[in-house]
Amino acid sequence: MSKPTALVISAHSADFVWRAGGAIALHAAAGFEVTVVCLSYGERGESAKLWRQPGMTLERVKTERQKEAEAAAKVLGVHDLQFWDLGDYPITLNQQSLFRMVDVMRAIHPKFILTHSKEDLYNWDHPAVTDFAQHARITAQAHGHNPGQKVLGAPPVFLFEPHQPEQCNWKPDVLLDIGPVWAQKRAAIECMAGQEHLWEYYTRVAQQRGAQAARNSDKSITWGEGYASVFPHVVERLV
Amino acid sequence: MSKPTALVISAHSADFVWRAGGAIALHAAAGFEVTVVCLSYGERGESAKLWRQPGMTLERVKTERQKEAEAAAKVLGVHDLQFWDLGDYPITLNQQSLFRMVDVMRAIHPKFILTHSKEDLYNWDHPAVTDFAQHARITAQAHGHNPGQKVLGAPPVFLFEPHQPEQCNWKPDVLLDIGPVWAQKRAAIECMAGQEHLWEYYTRVAQQRGAQAARNSDKSITWGEGYASVFPHVVERLV
Amino acid sequence: MSKPTALVISAHSADFVWRAGGAIALHAAAGFEVTVVCLSYGERGESAKLWRQPGMTLERVKTERQKEAEAAAKVLGVHDLQFWDLGDYPITLNQQSLFRMVDVMRAIHPKFILTHSKEDLYNWDHPAVTDFAQHARITAQAHGHNPGQKVLGAPPVFLFEPHQPEQCNWKPDVLLDIGPVWAQKRAAIECMAGQEHLWEYYTRVAQQRGAQAARNSDKSITWGEGYASVFPHVVERLV
Amino acid sequence: MSKPTALVISAHSADFVWRAGGAIALHAAAGFEVTVVCLSYGERGESAKLWRQPGMTLERVKTERQKEAEAAAKVLGVHDLQFWDLGDYPITLNQQSLFRMVDVMRAIHPKFILTHSKEDLYNWDHPAVTDFAQHARITAQAHGHNPGQKVLGAPPVFLFEPHQPEQCNWKPDVLLDIGPVWAQKRAAIECMAGQEHLWEYYTRVAQQRGAQAARNSDKSITWGEGYASVFPHVVERLV
Amino acid sequence: MSKPTALVISAHSADFVWRAGGAIALHAAAGFEVTVVCLSYGERGESAKLWRQPGMTLERVKTERQKEAEAAAKVLGVHDLQFWDLGDYPITLNQQSLFRMVDVMRAIHPKFILTHSKEDLYNWDHPAVTDFAQHARITAQAHGHNPGQKVLGAPPVFLFEPHQPEQCNWKPDVLLDIGPVWAQKRAAIECMAGQEHLWEYYTRVAQQRGAQAARNSDKSITWGEGYASVFPHVVERLV
Amino acid sequence: MSKPTALVISAHSADFVWRAGGAIALHAAAGFEVTVVCLSYGERGESAKLWRQPGMTLERVKTERQKEAEAAAKVLGVHDLQFWDLGDYPITLNQQSLFRMVDVMRAIHPKFILTHSKEDLYNWDHPAVTDFAQHARITAQAHGHNPGQKVLGAPPVFLFEPHQPEQCNWKPDVLLDIGPVWAQKRAAIECMAGQEHLWEYYTRVAQQRGAQAARNSDKSITWGEGYASVFPHVVERLV
Repeated sequence: MSKPTALVISAHSADFVWRAGGAIALHAAAGFEVTVVCLSYGERGESAKLWRQPGMTLERVKTERQKEAEAAAKVLGVHDLQFWDLGDYPITLNQQSLFRMVDVMRAIHPKFILTHSKEDLYNWDHPAVTDFAQHARITAQAHGHNPGQKVLGAPPVFLFEPHQPEQCNWKPDVLLDIGPVWAQKRAAIECMAGQEHLWEYYTRVAQQRGAQAARNSDKSITWGEGYASVFPHVVERLV
Repeated sequence: MSKPTALVISAHSADFVWRAGGAIALHAAAGFEVTVVCLSYGERGESAKLWRQPGMTLERVKTERQKEAEAAAKVLGVHDLQFWDLGDYPITLNQQSLFRMVDVMRAIHPKFILTHSKEDLYNWDHPAVTDFAQHARITAQAHGHNPGQKVLGAPPVFLFEPHQPEQCNWKPDVLLDIGPVWAQKRAAIECMAGQEHLWEYYTRVAQQRGAQAARNSDKSITWGEGYASVFPHVVERLV
Repeated sequence: MSKPTALVISAHSADFVWRAGGAIALHAAAGFEVTVVCLSYGERGESAKLWRQPGMTLERVKTERQKEAEAAAKVLGVHDLQFWDLGDYPITLNQQSLFRMVDVMRAIHPKFILTHSKEDLYNWDHPAVTDFAQHARITAQAHGHNPGQKVLGAPPVFLFEPHQPEQCNWKPDVLLDIGPVWAQKRAAIECMAGQEHLWEYYTRVAQQRGAQAARNSDKSITWGEGYASVFPHVVERLV
Repeated sequence: MSKPTALVISAHSADFVWRAGGAIALHAAAGFEVTVVCLSYGERGESAKLWRQPGMTLERVKTERQKEAEAAAKVLGVHDLQFWDLGDYPITLNQQSLFRMVDVMRAIHPKFILTHSKEDLYNWDHPAVTDFAQHARITAQAHGHNPGQKVLGAPPVFLFEPHQPEQCNWKPDVLLDIGPVWAQKRAAIECMAGQEHLWEYYTRVAQQRGAQAARNSDKSITWGEGYASVFPHVVERLV
Repeated sequence: MSKPTALVISAHSADFVWRAGGAIALHAAAGFEVTVVCLSYGERGESAKLWRQPGMTLERVKTERQKEAEAAAKVLGVHDLQFWDLGDYPITLNQQSLFRMVDVMRAIHPKFILTHSKEDLYNWDHPAVTDFAQHARITAQAHGHNPGQKVLGAPPVFLFEPHQPEQCNWKPDVLLDIGPVWAQKRAAIECMAGQEHLWEYYTRVAQQRGAQAARNSDKSITWGEGYASVFPHVVERLV
Repeated sequence: MSKPTALVISAHSADFVWRAGGAIALHAAAGFEVTVVCLSYGERGESAKLWRQPGMTLERVKTERQKEAEAAAKVLGVHDLQFWDLGDYPITLNQQSLFRMVDVMRAIHPKFILTHSKEDLYNWDHPAVTDFAQHARITAQAHGHNPGQKVLGAPPVFLFEPHQPEQCNWKPDVLLDIGPVWAQKRAAIECMAGQEHLWEYYTRVAQQRGAQAARNSDKSITWGEGYASVFPHVVERLV
């Protein structure tokens, strides 16, 4: 029988690490095949350290970023890592890339989708990607799009934590205990050589979300990731 | 080993039926001992039909309302039904009733708590009770309140659907499939002889929430109840 | 046949003038009997100019404020002006005053109710009065409150413009053309000798709301008052 | 003298039936000439049942959808029904279609405009159409667009109820009594053979909005439609 | 040493006058070099009076609007006034204009940026420009955009007051005392011959914001401008 | 000449340390006389560690908490530390304590006031204190309260960061660089022996707010405190 799947839609090639590394490793360990689509490398807007090296070129930045993301994905147990190279700052999202994402969704029928927050004052690409991901999901549900294919069901969508959550009006309604895979997430973070200034920042984020998860439950939790659900949770029991 | 428990805090004696009858029956069937506290009978403000009878008195209204609630509770499998008779329109909530609710919480250590919405344009008692329930939960967590007692943990709180949800800024983030117990909920609703005008209204609410639950999942669901979570969901897996 | 009625619930004795003078005069002219309840005189918190006079006492302030309000009410065509003298900064609202307000509502069965905004950063009494007014309205609808009396229907409630609307999260969804009665409103404003610094301020408010009303319609409007509706508008036609 | 007009801007060819059928029939009966523009047929995204038929093609879906919409429009008394065939999932809205809509607005000078909600988690086309409609309205007000034409005034815009109102942050501030035309709306709904699963859903919506309209007024109302106003109501009287 | 700079991004050629004339004059007087970019002339949508003249053409409207803006800019002390002539109703913003704006930002490194509100029910161009300005600011911070240029820092962005602030969900969190330059702002306003109907409106806006500024401080302030900050204020002292 | 003053209103005796220790030390160092009022000791609800000691009593808890707070206040340079012992979980706030707070405000005429967030899901006392502080500030502005005293001006109010900011809908609009006094704040935190589990949590909060302050400015900042302003900032310059 086929394994369950999940889809992570990442604007830039490092986002899936900082923002969803724990969820990826946790579900990979639980038998999910996780597909990560890096829509761009973040080569223009999120590679300051690389650009400070003399003689740097756009291609070399992309190569470095790809290597880092591949290393991180390996540590996290990503099943399929795709680089779409759509450019960044600004990212270029059009009908062709939309239908390509629909194809991915219909190919794997993910049990859940992770992507960016709806708003981000500090980043124009992130919310553009969120809108794109939602749009692809809706299109994948349309019976008249490539008729005959199995249409997408209604996988829940969870939105990652942005860099400055309150400023982005992002409010986590799901706190995920990532304690069992924290060592992997930290190792994946350390693959991001070009953004070393963020290592400790996102380590502290994990600690704060862990402490909050403990406070909101009766469990001993140390490391967490927060998500904002897009859709209501459909359940058979309340706890 | 003791059974899991749940606590429903109902402003008036019929609220638990319209708003949480499905959740009560479902969890009772799953082995939960459900305690329902009716803080008042709704004798002044929610008993119009009874008051239209000649010679009606406050005591007779209360007696009728209690009988109806007891019949409904029986159908739903309520473990413990309490009537606190605190008055309605307006309800009287003071430190004595607060500490009494703390005692209930510490006595049963509920796995979850159900109560009213935060806002209600059409009802002054409902949001007062919600504030009271949250206050009691926080007080029950205080180590210095009756030191030596086991303090309450962090049970999630879910808020019932009010009569006019959009006007109350209530937005369901949890949709509960109550199909397995719908017949019981309908039977309990029919115990509410004094508010027959609401039977079909809340039956339709269940159908709409059921249809929405189906639309938000890949499941076949017909009857639903919506809840708004107060606290983030602490989870070990996203689906 | 009895005339239609309206009820204005004013925290302090001048509020009905600045905030609802146009609506009062307009409906009075159209045959409504308008009852204005001044819950306090605003004697402590809104009478700075009077307090600067040597030898001023609380009683003298109240007397002056009452005179001003009576003069303004006369200009506006108020049918019944009541002073409840409940104190201000803070106002004292209890069950006795609540039931007294219920009695007023049931005595006149107003076609609509005007009162303060839900929030006011600059005034503690205003939102307390709004909550009180809503509470009284709900209680007046309860069949078990003084059984046998005719219960209140569902009169719409409109909230006046506070001094700094954006800071109070007040947003007008109704713009009333008060051109036909502007001269009366201005004359009533000029009765408020103790708050002369506000005359021009509220004149400009009327001009801005008038200009906005013109912009939101195809009408020529010069003077306006804004209101925020509490309840949805129930209509038989959209325009 | 010319009759008053109204304009309904519908993303897909069935939306005007579920969401505004009552308003259309009611105003048609009152002498309005109602123009309905179906920007697309909903052929890809809202025709699941048709696509389940063997050998279905896009053209056949469109033909069926047009027939259904024409039948419904006839029942409702629509004056002018237009199909713009702009595609769906996603709809294609560009400057050409924008200026075409401006032309419609300036041709009929509608007394009011109906269109979709601002947000819709379940539909990407709906909010795109809302933005388009607002944009066309603003452009139609510009004196420099086709100078010499009579510019549009300031017709109010009302937003239809989406499928899951709370999830779309849609809050009705207008409840329209559609009792006098309910039979027509139901008959129009039954013209939508391809979406039979929605007949009862939207019948229940009408019942719930009717019950809420009754609760928010002193009237006996059974069937309703809810709308969210975009602009403030400019009035000469509050009731 | 070079002077500090500021950047005002104005959708139409008069916006900077009504909405930011005080801030411009005040900072110019304090030694700032203020650059104002008028993205369009507002020739189609904001020149009704000119279009009422017989034989008017688009080019003549633009010429008149440019003259007015130049005169106003001179009065206010604008250092550099640019007209980009991108069209209006709707404005055309594309990657070329985005990168041109990035160039301006990197050329002057503004200490702060002023632009429009995030929402505007009455204007489609204004929020489009706000999004454009934010997008340019983010792109100007990207090290990979024209590598080797000095990237932009993090200048604060303040959003001007729209015509109907509450309807646009615009809430001022900064009130600027423009008393010292009010005479200049009024003179600049009077340069706008084509929109004389707005002179008194925006004069009253300045009076109301002045009165509010006085009320929110212990200062004597008569004339004000309100702004909504996009980013948190980073400070070394709270007052 | 007298020194400038500031007032910190703390629900429980440790709140001022975690939440405002940096602001206190910074302004004390800058010559402000900072008054801190601890309305209660947090003896029932925030002293879990002490209550785990055998034979603990309410009085001993208070004594310990007072000692800790005094030690922390000394490190921070607090000018006047007051313990009002009003009880906690729930705190008791009445007219007597309100007027006592008015007396403090009029005695010192603070340049700014710090207190809790408006909402706190995890704490009932915190928002009660915020409402109390606002109420006292408004009452202190009333000329009729103790006529003859100098009334309070309009000092800004800044709200501290709660434990779980997003859940409390708290959004910082001011980020204060507390680098110069971080060592003092950490030392003060370490005085809180009874809540050692929070030391690292609030150290990380300071690091995150510091990183965010750096990101929102062109400054090198390592340690920060966030505040939410209640009132608009009245300024003479934008930067």
